[in-house]
Amino acid sequence: MKADYVIKNAWVYMTFRQCFEKRDVAVSGERIFEVSPEISYQEGNIIDGRGMYLIPGLVDIHMHIESSMTYPMEFSHFGLKAGTTTVVADAHEIANVFGIEGVRTFLEQKTELDIFYAIPSSVPATSMELETSGCSIGEPETEELLQDSRVLCLGEVMNFKSLVPEDGSDTEILRLIRMCQNMRGRDIRLEGHCPKISGRDLNRFIFTGVDADHTQQTEESVLEKTDLGMFLELQKKSLTNGVVETVCKNHLYENVALVTDDTMPDQLLKGQLNQVIVTAVKAGMPVEKAIYCATYTPARRMHLDDRGMIGPGKLADLVLLRNLEDFQPAAVIKGGKLVYQDQEVKGIDSGTISAKKERTDSGKLPFPPHFYHSVHCIQAEPSMFILKAEKPGSKVLANVMKISTFGTATEAVCREIPVRDGQICWQEAGLCLAAVFERYGKNGNIAYGLVEGGFDKPGAAATTWSHDSHNLLVLGNSPEDMALAQNRVLELQGGYVICAGGRVQAEARLNVGGIISDGPLEELAKDLGKVRDVMAELGYRNNNEIMSMSTLALPVSPSLKLTDYGMLEVRSQRQVPLIEEYL
Amino acid sequence: MKADYVIKNAWVYMTFRQCFEKRDVAVSGERIFEVSPEISYQEGNIIDGRGMYLIPGLVDIHMHIESSMTYPMEFSHFGLKAGTTTVVADAHEIANVFGIEGVRTFLEQKTELDIFYAIPSSVPATSMELETSGCSIGEPETEELLQDSRVLCLGEVMNFKSLVPEDGSDTEILRLIRMCQNMRGRDIRLEGHCPKISGRDLNRFIFTGVDADHTQQTEESVLEKTDLGMFLELQKKSLTNGVVETVCKNHLYENVALVTDDTMPDQLLKGQLNQVIVTAVKAGMPVEKAIYCATYTPARRMHLDDRGMIGPGKLADLVLLRNLEDFQPAAVIKGGKLVYQDQEVKGIDSGTISAKKERTDSGKLPFPPHFYHSVHCIQAEPSMFILKAEKPGSKVLANVMKISTFGTATEAVCREIPVRDGQICWQEAGLCLAAVFERYGKNGNIAYGLVEGGFDKPGAAATTWSHDSHNLLVLGNSPEDMALAQNRVLELQGGYVICAGGRVQAEARLNVGGIISDGPLEELAKDLGKVRDVMAELGYRNNNEIMSMSTLALPVSPSLKLTDYGMLEVRSQRQVPLIEEYL
Repeated sequence: MKADYVIKNAWVYMTFRQCFEKRDVAVSGERIFEVSPEISYQEGNIIDGRGMYLIPGLVDIHMHIESSMTYPMEFSHFGLKAGTTTVVADAHEIANVFGIEGVRTFLEQKTELDIFYAIPSSVPATSMELETSGCSIGEPETEELLQDSRVLCLGEVMNFKSLVPEDGSDTEILRLIRMCQNMRGRDIRLEGHCPKISGRDLNRFIFTGVDADHTQQTEESVLEKTDLGMFLELQKKSLTNGVVETVCKNHLYENVALVTDDTMPDQLLKGQLNQVIVTAVKAGMPVEKAIYCATYTPARRMHLDDRGMIGPGKLADLVLLRNLEDFQPAAVIKGGKLVYQDQEVKGIDSGTISAKKERTDSGKLPFPPHFYHSVHCIQAEPSMFILKAEKPGSKVLANVMKISTFGTATEAVCREIPVRDGQICWQEAGLCLAAVFERYGKNGNIAYGLVEGGFDKPGAAATTWSHDSHNLLVLGNSPEDMALAQNRVLELQGGYVICAGGRVQAEARLNVGGIISDGPLEELAKDLGKVRDVMAELGYRNNNEIMSMSTLALPVSPSLKLTDYGMLEVRSQRQVPLIEEYL
Repeated sequence: MKADYVIKNAWVYMTFRQCFEKRDVAVSGERIFEVSPEISYQEGNIIDGRGMYLIPGLVDIHMHIESSMTYPMEFSHFGLKAGTTTVVADAHEIANVFGIEGVRTFLEQKTELDIFYAIPSSVPATSMELETSGCSIGEPETEELLQDSRVLCLGEVMNFKSLVPEDGSDTEILRLIRMCQNMRGRDIRLEGHCPKISGRDLNRFIFTGVDADHTQQTEESVLEKTDLGMFLELQKKSLTNGVVETVCKNHLYENVALVTDDTMPDQLLKGQLNQVIVTAVKAGMPVEKAIYCATYTPARRMHLDDRGMIGPGKLADLVLLRNLEDFQPAAVIKGGKLVYQDQEVKGIDSGTISAKKERTDSGKLPFPPHFYHSVHCIQAEPSMFILKAEKPGSKVLANVMKISTFGTATEAVCREIPVRDGQICWQEAGLCLAAVFERYGKNGNIAYGLVEGGFDKPGAAATTWSHDSHNLLVLGNSPEDMALAQNRVLELQGGYVICAGGRVQAEARLNVGGIISDGPLEELAKDLGKVRDVMAELGYRNNNEIMSMSTLALPVSPSLKLTDYGMLEVRSQRQVPLIEEYL
């Protein structure tokens, strides 16, 4: 056995000491063969790493491919370019639409980037009594997924009330946890989602075996959770100076991983987990520690002992960097194969190591035909967006979802709305109307809610990318534009459409299940950029207009949201009427 | 679900921060239920931990129960008393005698201490061409063991030449490694034994996937091995000031575990892994780090994520200590049950937590009947210990094993010995004679070797506890005493016997397979103490007389050793004649 090529003279990351040393690294097949101060190698293939840094491929253990509105093969291309060589994906969006069949289509796609999977544990996010999703993931589906060795964990268990039932009953999520443990023993992880839970409740949560959390952390939550043995997955919003200082001061690098969770299509063009490293470093984490938290620590969390460090026998997943500031790879090697390089790396194009990877384009559709025909609801007409008063009176007191300018939470407020000619004149109150059309052809539900802080100019938006059930959500203040946008999304069989003045102003097609595009990511990102711009022009004020609108339908995100069954107070999981009172 | 009892006011070890904080710890069933600054608990069972330290139960991932010449149930009692609640045992001694059947008898014994297992990878230590063991462990046996979820790893792979064959051939150990990986995927560890291997050879070793080492380390080997991704298991002999300083300076606590490897019966009465912690602290390791390296780090190495720290959901394996100096437990809790307490712990004897564990004594033999009749060779007579010259001459040049006063290595030396009346007069040269009787009834081999540095007064020792094949080894300078000792060991069906002046002076019975005793450990330790004393009285000079003599037959320990096939030069694995030359 001998080496296929050697990377010479780079500063190589020493994982266990978290520092760089000058080393030569030989690769044989898909694995690292030798790491030594000097490897004399006469046989030709040498990559000149002089002046560069060599780190292990990045490992992202909590992320959703569908957040990039794309599919595994396309994600692989851009993930690798960013230096990410392994992810653990929770495909819970495609699972909400197509159930186990959706997850299977992901599992079947061959990618150069290693994609492992989490079992979507909360599909639907609440229950079929509160929202209609396309499918659910229960015990039979979990049993099937557990048989695939690429499935590493149960993904973000989120419903505290089901996990720690007050009456001590045996809930479905507890049965799923037991099934995981019985079928896979030590070889499974239970990943959680436990925002703002502390004290006795946090103890109860972790007692169930669910011992990781990727939600937003504070300095206090970091200390409390890690003291109790919880593994933390920090995404950008958690990487405040205070949180990073707490991690560093207490040397928590073994139990804290960096993750992306959601990366929008336009963000993915610029990077992936490497961008989270940049954020962590800006917040005060030494870069050598940030690398550790994005390679070895996450790999070990998932028992992926074959990667996450540069040593003999490990997978040759390697990233060459020119500097440790922008973290843009000069070259990326996955399983010994060169999969990305920028223009200037010397030596790389000689001989067998020049297998530069072109983007997958086999001409074959990555999904079965019916995945492209999945939006089944009636065509809207403008009259559907006129609210009629059911009792006499001059005004009503209505429950309203107030959109924030930052983040996805809404505030529940009450507003007085005039009633005239039997119509509730929400436009006059400066509100928008939201409507959710059940789009799986199951029950034809249409539910309405009122929104403050949406558009302030006449227009409308409609989308099937509305978490987590992905029903057809319409938002607007012009019934004609609302109907037009809804019709166009239906025609596209999924997407994001913005209308104003009786015309489509911007649109992005999401033709697979209404949530992802099978086209090139660059085009999708461009289209969504236009969608975002027009939404802003129409007066939508939020740091992420698209995510803000799409999560209006997400009944596990605070505090008042709208499903196809109507508005829901999230904490209590109680339905809330649109009209609180006829005045 | 509620707590069964609460340990209040102890200084509780915070694993992720490696420090102590005042906490209350509630236990429910076999698991920790809650860890909080204050748990108000009205229901009775409270252990008063005031002024004491509470740490996780110790986890010893490299050890051999047979080194204590005892059996799992008896080991469990003393291990728990020392604060060890989990071990990973490599039962390669019983495997050498009884093969897979021996390992099965260990696996079948129910113990309160959790005993996980390594697959003995090197049984016999060399090959059946070089030594006769009772049985071997090959592919069918490995396949059987891999099906037991208590088997966590392939144990100490030691033969570098088989692991990295020069001709690139497919050796048995490489097939065993592949079998482990194919059958168990991520859920198996490959443990190595690679003393004094470095540079390119070390890279080749680790490249096979065998990435842990428990042999003696130096400051340099610690750095080189951990830089290459090797996990180190440090036993007492590795814990020099220099090694400990290297570990501490480079914060290698995640990748370095403390282990016992071999604990003699008399040592086990005093402690187990807790004694290694004491040694590490004396060599300069902060005690909070030493605890980490004896709990969380080893548990994680073996993917035992349910233990090694004090947090909700983890196994309630807990040790209460009065101080962090002598590390003698005040109380030990295993899986929520109190299994040991000294006299003075308050609150422990109240209510349901007072289930003080009495030593197992069911009256039933822990092994099948034929395990008590396993020594099958002829009775020696004094004449068997007279060496005859095969050629005429007045003296010979002989190859001699020179015993060291420290450790188990011998030196290969040549000595001139007078010949008279056709007899080689080794006694006149101040030497002892060693003889190995094949004791499995397979081939009746008897082989002889000469020894310098054994007894200097007339006497003899005989034993079946002679690593790793455990044939019947006799050493002495008096043929009558040698025959007597051999006969007595045969009569005992295993043990250690010292004779002088025609009488048995000391003996310890090892009646199970000739290597372990099914009696109480205290008695065995007392008997062995006498054996040790008499050996010293007869002039045997070594820090561990018993281990020194027993390893005279171990053909993987440097440098000249004796098997039932004759003397063997260990490095080259070549046989060496007793008489080098007739002078």
